[in-house]
Amino acid sequence: MKSISILGSTGSIGCNTLKVVEHLQDTRVVALGAGGNVEELAAQIRKFQPELVAVKDEECAEKLLRKISDLEFQIPKILTGEEGLIAVATHEKAETIVSATVGAIGFVPTLRAIEAGKRIALANKETLVMAGELMTKAAAKSGAELLPVDSEHNALHQCLRGESRKEVKRLILTASGGPFREKSKKEIENATRAEALNHPNWKMGDKVTIDSATLMNKGLEVIEAKWLFGFEADEISVIVHPQSIVHSMVEMVDGSIIAQLGVTDMRHAIQYALTYPERKPTELAPLDFAQLSKLTFESPDLERFPCLALAYEALRKGGTMPAVLSAANEIVVQAFLDGKIRLSEIPRIIESVMGEHEAQAVSSLEVVLETDAWARSRAIMKLEKTASAN
Amino acid sequence: MKSISILGSTGSIGCNTLKVVEHLQDTRVVALGAGGNVEELAAQIRKFQPELVAVKDEECAEKLLRKISDLEFQIPKILTGEEGLIAVATHEKAETIVSATVGAIGFVPTLRAIEAGKRIALANKETLVMAGELMTKAAAKSGAELLPVDSEHNALHQCLRGESRKEVKRLILTASGGPFREKSKKEIENATRAEALNHPNWKMGDKVTIDSATLMNKGLEVIEAKWLFGFEADEISVIVHPQSIVHSMVEMVDGSIIAQLGVTDMRHAIQYALTYPERKPTELAPLDFAQLSKLTFESPDLERFPCLALAYEALRKGGTMPAVLSAANEIVVQAFLDGKIRLSEIPRIIESVMGEHEAQAVSSLEVVLETDAWARSRAIMKLEKTASAN
Repeated sequence: MKSISILGSTGSIGCNTLKVVEHLQDTRVVALGAGGNVEELAAQIRKFQPELVAVKDEECAEKLLRKISDLEFQIPKILTGEEGLIAVATHEKAETIVSATVGAIGFVPTLRAIEAGKRIALANKETLVMAGELMTKAAAKSGAELLPVDSEHNALHQCLRGESRKEVKRLILTASGGPFREKSKKEIENATRAEALNHPNWKMGDKVTIDSATLMNKGLEVIEAKWLFGFEADEISVIVHPQSIVHSMVEMVDGSIIAQLGVTDMRHAIQYALTYPERKPTELAPLDFAQLSKLTFESPDLERFPCLALAYEALRKGGTMPAVLSAANEIVVQAFLDGKIRLSEIPRIIESVMGEHEAQAVSSLEVVLETDAWARSRAIMKLEKTASAN
Repeated sequence: MKSISILGSTGSIGCNTLKVVEHLQDTRVVALGAGGNVEELAAQIRKFQPELVAVKDEECAEKLLRKISDLEFQIPKILTGEEGLIAVATHEKAETIVSATVGAIGFVPTLRAIEAGKRIALANKETLVMAGELMTKAAAKSGAELLPVDSEHNALHQCLRGESRKEVKRLILTASGGPFREKSKKEIENATRAEALNHPNWKMGDKVTIDSATLMNKGLEVIEAKWLFGFEADEISVIVHPQSIVHSMVEMVDGSIIAQLGVTDMRHAIQYALTYPERKPTELAPLDFAQLSKLTFESPDLERFPCLALAYEALRKGGTMPAVLSAANEIVVQAFLDGKIRLSEIPRIIESVMGEHEAQAVSSLEVVLETDAWARSRAIMKLEKTASAN
């Protein structure tokens, strides 16, 4: 029996992870970390009987306790805030930590899990974007293994099996292109929240879905790929592939391209990360090639999707710049979701915050957290100016 | 410096192998086996200075000698017939033998190279189709390594790197569909030699090109895949993919599909086989995804292309039946190329020869050679009947 903890258990990846756990039947859930969705967490506790859970704050903890007071088995220990998430991430019985919180909140708990030498099934993009150097150094020191859970990096991980790093020429991340792939610049600028949330292929959380619409998601993935696999910006390409069947590709020095294809269901990548180096049957329907009429590819348009260009710029500048990109993005995406700004303000404000920042080396956790706080406050200030100007 | 021999040096694969050798600059050609193309062989001798060459017969040997009598370096030893090809295949200095003759003629020389423990870069389909069991047993005994050179099996070899056999669910061979993919049954029946030789994607020898038009080529590849990788008929699928960009795919038990893509140039697969397990840069232009608008897939139509169904039938019956399929096919394809029969007679005559054959175990070389001779004579007899009926 394997044991896992989940950071972000009530989110999209978290819920899918629990489905995979149910299917695999050889994995025990020892700890669950969630935010404020007490209803869902209570249901998860009933089903998976973890020893420890973490919620956002005391209010949530009390609500949760009322909901599970009738449990016939041992009520789990309930902790709160970042401390709670760290306890989930470093639970002594968990060999694997699924890091699936959205945004910067998973950052410190994931670092602690890495330092504890856990296997990390990593779905939280910000972790590597904000502090790839810190995380990968900590992993090298503790022996922690990072297994990407999002479909693109998981595909790259599969394509790189049995290959030698020096014989890989470049990574090719595929992008669905999102809901605005065929829209004009003007249509994108004036897109509504509902339009931006209408992703053609994947059902994901709101923040990630907006990032997919702006292609910032792909930009963050480019940065993540650097740290996961050790490639530079010029060795990582993005290609738009609207069908999302080819999840990513690798080009070898001999011109051969290895691609990973599959149905668009996150459970594939989650299961791969949990069972690696083994592969096990899934409960999902296989890809049907006879029904698959065609696959198309096109170059991304950096003019209509400036967030992708900003991410490459941040990666090339290096140091703390990707953390600024990610933190500012988190703030402005939330503002868009709250109806406070137009979609086109997202890259504009991020670029403006980046322009005020002098990249420095990611020498410590403090540097990252300070940079994160600074970028957030700058983004918020710029948001207020934008709002008062409107 | 590595050393190689080539069986079939003046054919399409042979000439491309020599181009790859020139590009790699770390490989010496010690022996060349050809048929009757003395002109080309003489040019190859001038350039690559092999120690030994083999030609079809004494007449060719004399012609060749006259053509290279002015050589400024040591004139290579010239041998003839099967004996000559065997000497090329077992040359003591050659570590790798490129087996690229067309049809059954490469069969015994390739077996001798396998028995001698050479690495075999295998382009000759008939070798494994006729006697896969003998060949793979001999390889297991001598430690010879079989590296497929045709693009499909080479792709499968690449897709299987780093994977465990028991975690592979099936192999998926792609087929271009040939020149008759969109033709009606009637149009295919009455196709001319020129139409059948007009392959949309690949420039190959005549016999292989006709096999591509009838999909027998793909059928032979299905049989070959069984022996190269250890899969049964039900675990090997064929999918029509007209662009020939995806060279083949592997489906894993977890539903993940690993595909290999590349430009349609045989030098990729040849170089892979020569440099494996390393990969080296090629002189070929890489695949351009931005220019690659779309990839399509469709199921093969066994009614319009009965040769593919016959190959599956032969594989399921096992034993000597694939050798009958291959030998009869070789005879009837030549008859078609000679203008003696219509394209639709090809599967009809093969099926009829197979119907007269009781499959037996491939227990020895003699059994294979007897089966081969029997199937050829039966096919010739049926050809004569067809001709006199026309």
